[in-house]
Amino acid sequence: MNNRVHNFSAGPSALPTEVLQEMQESLLSYRGCGMSVMEMSHRGDLFMEIIEEARTRIKRLYNLSSEYEVLFVQGGASLQFAMIPMNFIGEGEKADYIETGTWSTKAIAEARIQNKGVRIAATSKAIDFTGIPTALDLSPDAPFVHVTTNNTIRGTQWHTLPETGNVPLIADMSSDILSRPMDTSRFGMIYAGAQKNMGPAGTAVVILKKEMLKKIPATLPTMLSYRTYVEKESMFNTPATFPIYAISLVTKWLEETMGGLIAMETINHRKADQLYGCIDEDDFYAGTAVRESRSLMNVTFRIRDHALEPIFIERALKAGLAGLKGHKSVGGLRASIYNAVSEGSVGALCDFMDDFRREHR
Amino acid sequence: MNNRVHNFSAGPSALPTEVLQEMQESLLSYRGCGMSVMEMSHRGDLFMEIIEEARTRIKRLYNLSSEYEVLFVQGGASLQFAMIPMNFIGEGEKADYIETGTWSTKAIAEARIQNKGVRIAATSKAIDFTGIPTALDLSPDAPFVHVTTNNTIRGTQWHTLPETGNVPLIADMSSDILSRPMDTSRFGMIYAGAQKNMGPAGTAVVILKKEMLKKIPATLPTMLSYRTYVEKESMFNTPATFPIYAISLVTKWLEETMGGLIAMETINHRKADQLYGCIDEDDFYAGTAVRESRSLMNVTFRIRDHALEPIFIERALKAGLAGLKGHKSVGGLRASIYNAVSEGSVGALCDFMDDFRREHR
Repeated sequence: MNNRVHNFSAGPSALPTEVLQEMQESLLSYRGCGMSVMEMSHRGDLFMEIIEEARTRIKRLYNLSSEYEVLFVQGGASLQFAMIPMNFIGEGEKADYIETGTWSTKAIAEARIQNKGVRIAATSKAIDFTGIPTALDLSPDAPFVHVTTNNTIRGTQWHTLPETGNVPLIADMSSDILSRPMDTSRFGMIYAGAQKNMGPAGTAVVILKKEMLKKIPATLPTMLSYRTYVEKESMFNTPATFPIYAISLVTKWLEETMGGLIAMETINHRKADQLYGCIDEDDFYAGTAVRESRSLMNVTFRIRDHALEPIFIERALKAGLAGLKGHKSVGGLRASIYNAVSEGSVGALCDFMDDFRREHR
Repeated sequence: MNNRVHNFSAGPSALPTEVLQEMQESLLSYRGCGMSVMEMSHRGDLFMEIIEEARTRIKRLYNLSSEYEVLFVQGGASLQFAMIPMNFIGEGEKADYIETGTWSTKAIAEARIQNKGVRIAATSKAIDFTGIPTALDLSPDAPFVHVTTNNTIRGTQWHTLPETGNVPLIADMSSDILSRPMDTSRFGMIYAGAQKNMGPAGTAVVILKKEMLKKIPATLPTMLSYRTYVEKESMFNTPATFPIYAISLVTKWLEETMGGLIAMETINHRKADQLYGCIDEDDFYAGTAVRESRSLMNVTFRIRDHALEPIFIERALKAGLAGLKGHKSVGGLRASIYNAVSEGSVGALCDFMDDFRREHR
């Protein structure tokens, strides 16, 4: 598309160009109604249709049963880190958290700040979070097991979710939601900030099993109780209407253009295989994650000669490849290849990497 | 503007057409960078400039001293209702709340849910919130006095703020922020959901006096402590980037097109005077708020013959005048004439109202 860069940002990140075009066309008048989606009452028919479409498409994409509710909550995954223990860890209970990097560490911290019971059921801290832990020490009495399905900073991902028996899984899927089919029946809750695979920043999507509502204390602040979002259909107050509109368009694109999650997963595998293949070709580049934990969403790597990395980033940007700098806490390089990053963009990156290698070998 | 309606919605509500046009033009590539504002890292230079511009313009519009910070917090005013007592009502303290309608009632409820000390320092409940209370019973020991400066549902507004001595004012200005100049030095905190006078839904703006930070307990959940937003410059996690971008454009429009808050107030007075003048002309229409408490933002009125109201709403919509239905809890009619509603729109409404009166007298 004219002047669009190949966007490998870790989040906020690329949106499908078709989605942006549709937003652009309707920005001053949505479906001829004479106002922007940003300007309309969230309780009017037009917006009610939009939020219902976003909800319905997410339910359909994941084949969610009627036991699940789809909620829109502001504050990103970070507010979820606080709400989860507040809502679901009762007096005397200990929740099992699996520690796989910065984001799960932050989730654990928010439970501890509230003096809630927490057990670390597994951690990959010893290998600096470059892999997913294999030995899990789960308690059958835990109210839930918390897992971060994809770790943006180190570029690791759970490819098979842990067996937790009757204990519900709660998963932070901020960086891989809707990127692959999922047996959702195992989850008590799935949550994700929108700004990686679903839309612009401003809302988190929460998929909640209704059974979980029983755990919630009666006296939480209204905006911090999941019960409010279920009872008021995410409309206790004005939700982030424009981000929700974007989610309705992105999920429509996922269903109607990409063909659903099975097709999307195939494409995501193809993109990741191509990029890891390019990295593994020789020892000029090196992936930083343990091979069997490599993420399909965030491909983290280094150049053997680290001094070349700033040159790589600068030259890539000039070639129209943006967002390739690794997270500041670990350095190196990272290409985030979420759903909206096309195979064409990944191909362009691989070509650039091949050229760069040839020049600097 | 072609096909744009006159939008009198109470919120989310009209945005300046020029602002929407600027957003539209840059929707696929902001300033030629090849990506939308929605797609860029919140920590990149381009977005850092945007959030800084939004902050700086708000500071300049209100002549804020360096004692104040401008913060962006997700969750709307409703999350602020919970955060304020959590952060600022200490053990054994009682905060003074002034009850002027639905929104202040909700603010009070969130303090009580947390078992925080609350005193009702004044209420206009006896007159069904159709006016602003005059007799105040303030305590000199209160940690703050909470006031709702404008009440969207009943259409009332404080025209002179209460004298609170050394006790800081905390004001919910969701529906009249940036509509008039304000002696901000009297406030410990001002907050407002963006979606009425500043931008699309998805962020609240909080103006906080640094002195207030001293009150905050050390162990709040990170996302619920104002200290986090001050220390991390509203970037502990990804803020609602696109709504903040919109605020930067709306505040630019306020400064550069409208000429600042003194000029804006003059225009807002002119719009309200014209509309109330039309209502008061005879007894066909009747304003529902006590005259001296009438809001410049939300003009609430009835038709003497209530049965005509649904016809009024339907006919108005056909004439391109949208959002005139009163809040469901009180019925009747309401025209919200926030900053972005032009004098032309108010004129069109008055013409319609005159015609309607002539026909149905």
